[in-house]
Amino acid sequence: MRLAILGTGFISRFYAESLVAQRRKDEVVMVYGRDEAKTKQFATDYNIPNWSTDLHQAVAHPDVETVVIGLANNVHLDAVLACAAAKKHIVCTKPLGRNAKESLQMLQAVENAGVTGGYLEDLCYTPKFLKSLAAIQNGAIGEVIWTKSRETHPGPHSDWFWDKEKAGGGAIIDLGCHCVEISRNFIGKNIKPLEVMCWADTRMHPIDAEDNAIGLVKYANGAIGQFEVSWSFRGGMDLRDEVMGTEGTIWANNFLRTGFEMYSTGKGVGYVAEKAESSSGWLFPVGDEVHELGYNHMFTDMFDAIEKNRQPAETFYDGYIVNAIIDAAYLSAKTKQWEPVQIEDWRGSDDIAVKKELTSYDDNYYLIKEELLPSGETKTIVKHKQTGSIEKR
Amino acid sequence: MRLAILGTGFISRFYAESLVAQRRKDEVVMVYGRDEAKTKQFATDYNIPNWSTDLHQAVAHPDVETVVIGLANNVHLDAVLACAAAKKHIVCTKPLGRNAKESLQMLQAVENAGVTGGYLEDLCYTPKFLKSLAAIQNGAIGEVIWTKSRETHPGPHSDWFWDKEKAGGGAIIDLGCHCVEISRNFIGKNIKPLEVMCWADTRMHPIDAEDNAIGLVKYANGAIGQFEVSWSFRGGMDLRDEVMGTEGTIWANNFLRTGFEMYSTGKGVGYVAEKAESSSGWLFPVGDEVHELGYNHMFTDMFDAIEKNRQPAETFYDGYIVNAIIDAAYLSAKTKQWEPVQIEDWRGSDDIAVKKELTSYDDNYYLIKEELLPSGETKTIVKHKQTGSIEKR
Amino acid sequence: MRLAILGTGFISRFYAESLVAQRRKDEVVMVYGRDEAKTKQFATDYNIPNWSTDLHQAVAHPDVETVVIGLANNVHLDAVLACAAAKKHIVCTKPLGRNAKESLQMLQAVENAGVTGGYLEDLCYTPKFLKSLAAIQNGAIGEVIWTKSRETHPGPHSDWFWDKEKAGGGAIIDLGCHCVEISRNFIGKNIKPLEVMCWADTRMHPIDAEDNAIGLVKYANGAIGQFEVSWSFRGGMDLRDEVMGTEGTIWANNFLRTGFEMYSTGKGVGYVAEKAESSSGWLFPVGDEVHELGYNHMFTDMFDAIEKNRQPAETFYDGYIVNAIIDAAYLSAKTKQWEPVQIEDWRGSDDIAVKKELTSYDDNYYLIKEELLPSGETKTIVKHKQTGSIEKR
Amino acid sequence: MRLAILGTGFISRFYAESLVAQRRKDEVVMVYGRDEAKTKQFATDYNIPNWSTDLHQAVAHPDVETVVIGLANNVHLDAVLACAAAKKHIVCTKPLGRNAKESLQMLQAVENAGVTGGYLEDLCYTPKFLKSLAAIQNGAIGEVIWTKSRETHPGPHSDWFWDKEKAGGGAIIDLGCHCVEISRNFIGKNIKPLEVMCWADTRMHPIDAEDNAIGLVKYANGAIGQFEVSWSFRGGMDLRDEVMGTEGTIWANNFLRTGFEMYSTGKGVGYVAEKAESSSGWLFPVGDEVHELGYNHMFTDMFDAIEKNRQPAETFYDGYIVNAIIDAAYLSAKTKQWEPVQIEDWRGSDDIAVKKELTSYDDNYYLIKEELLPSGETKTIVKHKQTGSIEKR
Repeated sequence: MRLAILGTGFISRFYAESLVAQRRKDEVVMVYGRDEAKTKQFATDYNIPNWSTDLHQAVAHPDVETVVIGLANNVHLDAVLACAAAKKHIVCTKPLGRNAKESLQMLQAVENAGVTGGYLEDLCYTPKFLKSLAAIQNGAIGEVIWTKSRETHPGPHSDWFWDKEKAGGGAIIDLGCHCVEISRNFIGKNIKPLEVMCWADTRMHPIDAEDNAIGLVKYANGAIGQFEVSWSFRGGMDLRDEVMGTEGTIWANNFLRTGFEMYSTGKGVGYVAEKAESSSGWLFPVGDEVHELGYNHMFTDMFDAIEKNRQPAETFYDGYIVNAIIDAAYLSAKTKQWEPVQIEDWRGSDDIAVKKELTSYDDNYYLIKEELLPSGETKTIVKHKQTGSIEKR
Repeated sequence: MRLAILGTGFISRFYAESLVAQRRKDEVVMVYGRDEAKTKQFATDYNIPNWSTDLHQAVAHPDVETVVIGLANNVHLDAVLACAAAKKHIVCTKPLGRNAKESLQMLQAVENAGVTGGYLEDLCYTPKFLKSLAAIQNGAIGEVIWTKSRETHPGPHSDWFWDKEKAGGGAIIDLGCHCVEISRNFIGKNIKPLEVMCWADTRMHPIDAEDNAIGLVKYANGAIGQFEVSWSFRGGMDLRDEVMGTEGTIWANNFLRTGFEMYSTGKGVGYVAEKAESSSGWLFPVGDEVHELGYNHMFTDMFDAIEKNRQPAETFYDGYIVNAIIDAAYLSAKTKQWEPVQIEDWRGSDDIAVKKELTSYDDNYYLIKEELLPSGETKTIVKHKQTGSIEKR
Repeated sequence: MRLAILGTGFISRFYAESLVAQRRKDEVVMVYGRDEAKTKQFATDYNIPNWSTDLHQAVAHPDVETVVIGLANNVHLDAVLACAAAKKHIVCTKPLGRNAKESLQMLQAVENAGVTGGYLEDLCYTPKFLKSLAAIQNGAIGEVIWTKSRETHPGPHSDWFWDKEKAGGGAIIDLGCHCVEISRNFIGKNIKPLEVMCWADTRMHPIDAEDNAIGLVKYANGAIGQFEVSWSFRGGMDLRDEVMGTEGTIWANNFLRTGFEMYSTGKGVGYVAEKAESSSGWLFPVGDEVHELGYNHMFTDMFDAIEKNRQPAETFYDGYIVNAIIDAAYLSAKTKQWEPVQIEDWRGSDDIAVKKELTSYDDNYYLIKEELLPSGETKTIVKHKQTGSIEKR
Repeated sequence: MRLAILGTGFISRFYAESLVAQRRKDEVVMVYGRDEAKTKQFATDYNIPNWSTDLHQAVAHPDVETVVIGLANNVHLDAVLACAAAKKHIVCTKPLGRNAKESLQMLQAVENAGVTGGYLEDLCYTPKFLKSLAAIQNGAIGEVIWTKSRETHPGPHSDWFWDKEKAGGGAIIDLGCHCVEISRNFIGKNIKPLEVMCWADTRMHPIDAEDNAIGLVKYANGAIGQFEVSWSFRGGMDLRDEVMGTEGTIWANNFLRTGFEMYSTGKGVGYVAEKAESSSGWLFPVGDEVHELGYNHMFTDMFDAIEKNRQPAETFYDGYIVNAIIDAAYLSAKTKQWEPVQIEDWRGSDDIAVKKELTSYDDNYYLIKEELLPSGETKTIVKHKQTGSIEKR
């Protein structure tokens, strides 16, 4: 696959690292940036034959088959429209838009142009995520009741993130977009997100946007997808997912505790890991960051999908749904109410409702619980099907 | 200290285990239970000289200085009134009441009788909690922004827990009472809890009470105390506390991952730990359960307090505040609104408000963030004090 | 139990902390130290009614029932002889002697005097150890093949530890004594330790004694007890035990990773844990150190044993065996040979030999292995009982 | 790179998985196996255009540039000689030979033929290993004193492993070869391995080869490289590396505790991870096994090296040194002596000796230790440069 990268900042460099790693057959043939010096440097660093400070020119270059958008949130829409006009496939970094209105426009643009719109939600491609999702889909943890995704760190790298207007918000749009889509995958993309309750506050930084938030997203089957985000967490980058199912549990720590620990008095330590805060004492490096963060599996799926003319696992439609949920979260943080998720174009199921299967103990009783006590005895608690009386057996 | 234990069930046995361990000078001289056989057995097991099936008689026994209440939630009030009438000191298991109305009556009863009312909130006495609290009070993590306490397991031991009327609710009253008080300690007992947002649902069991819930408690200084509770968690008993401060982080895993791991093909394994679900495969036993759950430090504080005529760290007043917060949580789960915490008798500060200290970068700018990049460069992001413009340095 | 503590240094303070905690009925009535000011201070700090700078006087005091020896290694023998002469029970810190010759004298002294000689091997009383030992004795991990105990830290607190003559050696005698006795418990105290291979070196400090060592102790049943010790480990105090059995595995981390993690920018943090090296960055405090290190359970067993006229779990005889093993380790480090353990007075079994029970697959074959492959197939490998041919099934 | 794979068993399948993953530009054009049906199936599964049951024919095929040897240990030598004769580059699975004599022949064969000989030591390419090695080479943990590598699991997949003659030994040659080379990298490949002490035993299986072993490899600079291997470990595959340096510590858990935990009652779980033993209870899956085990980075380095005409990080020379160390280990297990490592063709440094730099406290004293005590005091221990007297400051 021959690629143009739009953007030369932190995320574009991470993308480029992933694309040149492990002898990929994909090739970056063009890089675009506003700043000429930075763009040239980027081209040199990653051995890219063409560079441009003109977005339309970059996109239109005949060698370019697919465009990788690594720009600030406020220019995604324009970039997508330019790519769609040039009939190039697009894979766009997260969040898709600053709000559902923007992302719906992008979705419509790619669909009208007949090109692929891949949503670069890398955390839905981490090795742990992929194996978790497969396990859940196999039924290994039963029905998912509650899923929580947490992303917290001491704040983003680039200045535009901190600007509410350019970013479309603060920690929720920046980090919550990951969490929302992770939970949505685990609960099932076919299940409609109904409403959102969100608390958000600006506790630590001199900014207008929120730097801390918690949200609950309620789905049509009764499941709750919780997100926790912060730009004031101390200690590195905390990326954890937890899933509670009726038959099991999943805990995935994607970054800060991955079985790799280093103590150093401080001699000779350089970069430890993204958003690590120190280089002495106990450190928790990450083996291969682009891999652990899902970039490798993400690009593989994206380009395979384009070549095979199928949809990737994460599409512009997913980006749109995520934006719709986040819109409701921002509204809820303001109104202090549960706010409905407004989806103009719902493509999932409308038939799913909350179900609860009760386990019978015998003809007259439901089983509540069986337990092994320290004494070695098994204790059984049941409920009478008619009277509701709760009894020991 | 000469003690009467009221109750012969799971929690009373745990209390007794703690009280006979480590050569304590305290002595259980009386046990009360409704069931004569069980009560006699309890007296035999723990070498207690007196037993009774009459609560008033038990309490009134002249050898008894202090009464340990380990009864079901619905009989706490009567037991407390009986003890207060007999002018005996009382330490009562959690939750204090089924609601704030009950616990306020208990609080008034002990205060009127001039006896000590200790609230047996064991999880505010675990070794990790005590050290965390000391660290927070020393300022080791700065100002607390957000604290989360989680207690989840596959459901309680005794039948009455599952009965909404007897217990006063489900997982929130049973487990959330711990979480609420843990967060309240970390945030500061002097800080008023203002309002609560709560989601609760019955997802797995054939009961009327909730078996899953999440709540957010907002305090007067802007801090959030989050609780997560479940009676449908699979894999054991998950007791975790997390605190985010402006200068640091605390993560405490009290039970399920404490650095003790055992794999067994299943030969010869007996009881592993409270609410452990299996006895083969990878198991996570707990070294000394009564200690890890805080019972030892709790009773030490309670009896020292009584002897020295000071208040223990956890009092009936704390139990009352916890009930008031939980009342608001139950109401919120129903109304889907943030509900105010109704406290008739607030004894903490009324002067605390949200404050935010901004760090100046120089005369014209606030500092937003400084970060070490993989390249080795330090990146600084600032905000203009007048214009609000966000810029790189 | 009325106690005299001999010694006022680090370990004696730890002992005193444990003895005054949790409302013990035991009472320290005397403290002895060479330095008058320190001894008085110790008495004041722990509210001890008597103090003395004369060891014989301290021991002979009529209120003293049992003496707790917390002195430097080179004065254990004299102190024990003084206590035995005064017919007082003795519990002595580890190692018992600087070598087996010394500890055998101590053993004989208490046996001749008819007093109890308790060996204060605290790490054989940690909550995790006690539960592990119970599990192993129940058969939960089958037959123990190999056990490893590791104690490493940046070096001891007191100056005399670093003096080979006073201490009787370096890291092996200081830390290895714990490891040897832990392994010996897991393998079985009845099983004779046969021979030892040891590597030791002085890698980092300007001392004559070894600051790093690894040893293998071979037992009569074929089991290996491995010890790893270091005074040059960076990052805190690493106390880990691992046991491999034919039916299971035990991993216990007693100190550095116990489910308690704190990150601090460095504001307001004081003492973190014994031998912790820093007070900012990621820290790993220990909940209740005296408890986690086994002191509480140790003293409980010791004094219960004395009162009930039974032997404690760890006796002077155990201390003697440990010294005998360490003597062989020191010799091996010098000769670079496996050296026999010289035990003059073996009280365990002499009948235990290596046994290996082979599992039959059928009449003609032994089973080597059965495994579930990624494909879902089960693969079976067998060995012909006569020909020895190894085949798939 | 156009490749032939020799072998169709477990390891060849793992290699093929890695080679088809992540859109590599490398291509497998030929597969060889003895069994026609299995070989055809392999070709089908991985979309390989050619297959053969004739090794020489497979190697000689004109499309083949490089041969990947994934055969049993006893046929490595013949395969290498065949490839060298055909002037094809070779990358060969571990161990290189069954002994140093075999691997020296292979080394000479590739050097005489002028082709690259890459040693597929995957565990020296895991993401954690690579970052650890870089940190050590940067000086982050000071001088390496002691390194330990552990690989234990319940036993290998294929029958030939269990046959001492075919495999060249048991757990040492199978697993120890990884551990030896990991330690050698951390200590420095330029440093000569001098001698080995090894304990080995057959404790659990009906085989002639050892199923448990521990070895100590002493290097010219005084460092110790320890290996621990077992085919009787219960609980999965334990791959851990630990490094102690004068300025820091590294702990890497490559497989069994990587921040990914799943509990399942057992419904719907399939394959968990290589050598996992169960599919219910607490499970510890591995995100992307071929990546975590180092295959991706390994093949990238190998093929880049061949294309750029440089040596890969792991060469046949390394394989030879590893075999020489293992030969000494086997001899030591028999003689119970430290046995010298016999290297005919040492290419590293001969000038390195044990050095120890002492830190001066002042003109008269060396510094032994400084420590923060619980009391807040700092304690300093020093040694007089002339008298050797150890004192407090």
